[in-house]
Amino acid sequence: MANIETFENPAPQNNYVITHINEEFTSVCPITGLPDFGKIYVKYIPDQICIELKSLKYYFLEFRNMGIFYEAVTNKILDDLVAACSPKMMEITTEWSVRGGIHSTIVAKYEK
Amino acid sequence: MANIETFENPAPQNNYVITHINEEFTSVCPITGLPDFGKIYVKYIPDQICIELKSLKYYFLEFRNMGIFYEAVTNKILDDLVAACSPKMMEITTEWSVRGGIHSTIVAKYEK
Amino acid sequence: MANIETFENPAPQNNYVITHINEEFTSVCPITGLPDFGKIYVKYIPDQICIELKSLKYYFLEFRNMGIFYEAVTNKILDDLVAACSPKMMEITTEWSVRGGIHSTIVAKYEK
Amino acid sequence: MANIETFENPAPQNNYVITHINEEFTSVCPITGLPDFGKIYVKYIPDQICIELKSLKYYFLEFRNMGIFYEAVTNKILDDLVAACSPKMMEITTEWSVRGGIHSTIVAKYEK
Amino acid sequence: MANIETFENPAPQNNYVITHINEEFTSVCPITGLPDFGKIYVKYIPDQICIELKSLKYYFLEFRNMGIFYEAVTNKILDDLVAACSPKMMEITTEWSVRGGIHSTIVAKYEK
Amino acid sequence: MANIETFENPAPQNNYVITHINEEFTSVCPITGLPDFGKIYVKYIPDQICIELKSLKYYFLEFRNMGIFYEAVTNKILDDLVAACSPKMMEITTEWSVRGGIHSTIVAKYEK
Amino acid sequence: MANIETFENPAPQNNYVITHINEEFTSVCPITGLPDFGKIYVKYIPDQICIELKSLKYYFLEFRNMGIFYEAVTNKILDDLVAACSPKMMEITTEWSVRGGIHSTIVAKYEK
Amino acid sequence: MANIETFENPAPQNNYVITHINEEFTSVCPITGLPDFGKIYVKYIPDQICIELKSLKYYFLEFRNMGIFYEAVTNKILDDLVAACSPKMMEITTEWSVRGGIHSTIVAKYEK
Amino acid sequence: MANIETFENPAPQNNYVITHINEEFTSVCPITGLPDFGKIYVKYIPDQICIELKSLKYYFLEFRNMGIFYEAVTNKILDDLVAACSPKMMEITTEWSVRGGIHSTIVAKYEK
Amino acid sequence: MANIETFENPAPQNNYVITHINEEFTSVCPITGLPDFGKIYVKYIPDQICIELKSLKYYFLEFRNMGIFYEAVTNKILDDLVAACSPKMMEITTEWSVRGGIHSTIVAKYEK
Repeated sequence: MANIETFENPAPQNNYVITHINEEFTSVCPITGLPDFGKIYVKYIPDQICIELKSLKYYFLEFRNMGIFYEAVTNKILDDLVAACSPKMMEITTEWSVRGGIHSTIVAKYEK
Repeated sequence: MANIETFENPAPQNNYVITHINEEFTSVCPITGLPDFGKIYVKYIPDQICIELKSLKYYFLEFRNMGIFYEAVTNKILDDLVAACSPKMMEITTEWSVRGGIHSTIVAKYEK
Repeated sequence: MANIETFENPAPQNNYVITHINEEFTSVCPITGLPDFGKIYVKYIPDQICIELKSLKYYFLEFRNMGIFYEAVTNKILDDLVAACSPKMMEITTEWSVRGGIHSTIVAKYEK
Repeated sequence: MANIETFENPAPQNNYVITHINEEFTSVCPITGLPDFGKIYVKYIPDQICIELKSLKYYFLEFRNMGIFYEAVTNKILDDLVAACSPKMMEITTEWSVRGGIHSTIVAKYEK
Repeated sequence: MANIETFENPAPQNNYVITHINEEFTSVCPITGLPDFGKIYVKYIPDQICIELKSLKYYFLEFRNMGIFYEAVTNKILDDLVAACSPKMMEITTEWSVRGGIHSTIVAKYEK
Repeated sequence: MANIETFENPAPQNNYVITHINEEFTSVCPITGLPDFGKIYVKYIPDQICIELKSLKYYFLEFRNMGIFYEAVTNKILDDLVAACSPKMMEITTEWSVRGGIHSTIVAKYEK
Repeated sequence: MANIETFENPAPQNNYVITHINEEFTSVCPITGLPDFGKIYVKYIPDQICIELKSLKYYFLEFRNMGIFYEAVTNKILDDLVAACSPKMMEITTEWSVRGGIHSTIVAKYEK
Repeated sequence: MANIETFENPAPQNNYVITHINEEFTSVCPITGLPDFGKIYVKYIPDQICIELKSLKYYFLEFRNMGIFYEAVTNKILDDLVAACSPKMMEITTEWSVRGGIHSTIVAKYEK
Repeated sequence: MANIETFENPAPQNNYVITHINEEFTSVCPITGLPDFGKIYVKYIPDQICIELKSLKYYFLEFRNMGIFYEAVTNKILDDLVAACSPKMMEITTEWSVRGGIHSTIVAKYEK
Repeated sequence: MANIETFENPAPQNNYVITHINEEFTSVCPITGLPDFGKIYVKYIPDQICIELKSLKYYFLEFRNMGIFYEAVTNKILDDLVAACSPKMMEITTEWSVRGGIHSTIVAKYEK
């Protein structure tokens, strides 16, 4: 995967919450090969380091042609980003477009 | 009823929440024989297995010509889906179209 | 008042929540004789019996030409419906149209 | 019916458009005896006289317990108000609440 | 098909417009056998007769288990309702739920 | 009334449209003495001069304690502003808060 | 100030919540002399007496030409209404129109 | 490109309008190589043949990894679909996500 | 001003409409020195050349610290962009934030 | 930075909450030099003094041409305003426009 760059938390003494919302996420259904479209929320409390926004965009782009299930992609993003910035807390929410009349949302959370 | 297929939870170590929303549910009023229209929310924390989305769609289709009350259908979906995937938690919400100027919502919850 | 009919709770072992919303409620202001318009939310956890929806509609119709204050009608609906179905919990919310630039909401709750 | 009061047009030299919207109209279905709820738009270009707003409110109240069809009430309001103020143009729109999953809108127009 | 009942136009001297909107239409895809969900607008200028609302509801119910394409159902409703009431003008709009990321709208019009 | 200041049209060769919307207009009902609240749209095509925005604000403030009917205030604003800037076209729209369940909109137009 | 009238609580045995929302509040900025526009929420749990709605409207009208700051008016309304009805709880929220690109909200609460 | 399949117009005697809306279109910016996201409206009056919906979906998928400008993709879709079904009229609208604070819409039209 | 770059119209045989919307425009009031915030719509029918989007963004940035009135900036953008691409038609709409309770919109149009 | 003026809390005996929302914040990205646009919420419980609104507006204007990251500006505003008024609690929320398909929100909180 693309390297997720980070920078030093400018206010590590505060417990503040950062949310990045990607409204343009797309991956591929591993069964049908058809694209899935989603909205990804990355919400976290930084500890010593923060996630750099531009590298986060490139990280999301790597899923564009990857075949992966909703549940797996949600937990993979959580694992990758926790590994990248070791936050005090992180919550990943993925919201997915309608398929067959059903749309889905998944929320996974990590706490240090 | 249709078989509700499942697959192995890809992240059983996390307590994450999955929500599937069916905006196209319809069943039949057992008294008048007229159709009811609803929106069904299936929200759950998987334990060892997850519900497969396509079989969930076919499961909902079986209600299309079934005569059943709002309260009964809500609790039946909860019972069927808990039996299918043995989740840590599951909550079923059903929202119903207006009938005689009144519309109804029902929320039933299971916790392991 | 009209008889509020009930039926046996199909899932008394569950603590589930039923909400019926009447968007077409109207009564009469006892001072001016002019009509009031409101929206009534009946939210409850059934114990052994549930409220039948059609008789609930006819119950609401009895207020159409009755002179009664906002506070009184809210508490009267709570008392009548609690008496009819003896729920574990019931909450009545009434929202009222603008009068003289002011609109009002009243929430009354019963717990067994 | 209640008397619809009028007042002299303060700017008869201008062709200006007045719209009064009653969001709290209710009448009775002549077949079922159940109430109908609607929203009434009165849009007109006054000629020599304008409709007084308070008497218009009392005029609408007379339908509260009257059994009358959607199509008839729309044309009746048009006829009554044209007779009351002899406008250059008048258009009555009635929008009705859902009944049996269907809601209706009717638009009737008069031009001098 | 169900009989579409009619009644005499109460104001044939006016060119007024009636719109009935069915938010709960469902038919079946003739290829997949899966249900389609739609919203149907019937907009017309009556000539001598009007469409009775309850029989219109029963007419729509006949499509519930019928396999028929979007384009065909739109033109069929137009033909059936024009035949039933011989209006001065009629326009049928059908709006359909998302299928494969695409949703469709079809508008067909008749003028006497 | 306050003086409505103007400035030279910076582009008199173009037929362009300016709209100023005051969401905070208030005057007084001449019958009840109670305040009315409205939203005023001033839409015009300037000829040689434009209306200065700050003086327009002060002009509107003069109605704060003035007793005047909806129809009269709409036509008075049109007359005052046409006199102030002699536009190619001007249209005044006033939208008013609900009174007795009815709210009103008035549109008056001038063309040179 | 205007007298705030009250009436006996019709259900003092219940802890119910009343909210009155005035969307048409206006006062004057004590520095600039320009009007401020706001929306006032009065939320309270009555003890032995309730606030009468019409006198509440007249109470609010007394601020129309009064010069007073946001923070002061919020706390003054709380003090006046608590004195008038001695509630179990009262919360006043004031929301204010944009001034210089900034809009403000203030929430003050009393508990017996 | 994928083959755009068609079927015989079931009502060629009517001038009716079909609109297909793809909310999940994505292509690639030919300069930056970054993905673009858009919403595509295909609106047309069929002559002898209609566009089959499933093949339309596969046609749109071919743009997923194609580098192409907004203006070019809009006109290419118009040309391809006109060639495929020879309609009486066709209008393609493309709406694009924000890039650098700016978002774009393009409308191209063909008439036989 | 920044150079507005252009590229060759890929479909000059079509009369198609391009709209670019900048939601992040800001300039400075020449009287108070305070910033103004607006939304700019550039709608045009290209003739032989199109406006390049990135250079358009830089063009808008040049107004960030420029003192200029609403009417002047609207007509200046129209003149600059018409000079840059010599379109068949161009319409500039500017919408401005609230100042003193009033917000403004200006629409200027050019036709070849 | 501009001096943040304050005034004496008119109700220090109450724990009330003040929220000021600036919808027109702009600063500059320190890497690209391009402007960022945001919405700033200042929510606080005053102790002995309150923040004066006009000086707050001028304080925000100082960021207009300052290069500063999202995380830094959020914590800087918190630090500056806590230093200015020594509140019982203060929470700063910053919401940022879309950049590269991602938009961000940051929440930082201080408690005495």
